[in-house]
Amino acid sequence: MTIAYHAKIYVTLRPSVLDPAGTAVESGLEHLGYHNVSHVRIGKYIELTLTAEDESAAQKQLDVMCDKLLANTVIENYRFELLEVATVS
Amino acid sequence: MTIAYHAKIYVTLRPSVLDPAGTAVESGLEHLGYHNVSHVRIGKYIELTLTAEDESAAQKQLDVMCDKLLANTVIENYRFELLEVATVS
Repeated sequence: MTIAYHAKIYVTLRPSVLDPAGTAVESGLEHLGYHNVSHVRIGKYIELTLTAEDESAAQKQLDVMCDKLLANTVIENYRFELLEVATVS
Repeated sequence: MTIAYHAKIYVTLRPSVLDPAGTAVESGLEHLGYHNVSHVRIGKYIELTLTAEDESAAQKQLDVMCDKLLANTVIENYRFELLEVATVS
């Protein structure tokens, strides 16, 4: 049996890593008059569909996908949410 | 009274808009041997802290920030989650 999962993946810079994009957005917001905004951090939000035998198989595959391609684990953290959407076969 | 909120903002391409980055990631995953992945869409995940009088004031400000700077509303959708973190004054 194969199950289709919808995955939501959040890739964020590790807290210790500087975030020039976040800093740029923060100053952009200041230029718009928002002086009440701080700690702006920019990351990636990835959605995808994958099929697997079960949830733990899907999780294992996502971990490898994140480690190898979706995140640079030297400077980034990742987390994901899985939602079963359909039984495929 | 001023309340500090932690905001999580998700900026995604509208469904009708092509996603070359998503397509590139999808073929990258195929090269890694993952032929069970589809519908890859890449978006922005923004975290920030803002202070406001109450939640509805914070929501209104975030809407303007998204409309003016954080999202290109011609081709992108946005949604956000607000979490009260502290009473500042």
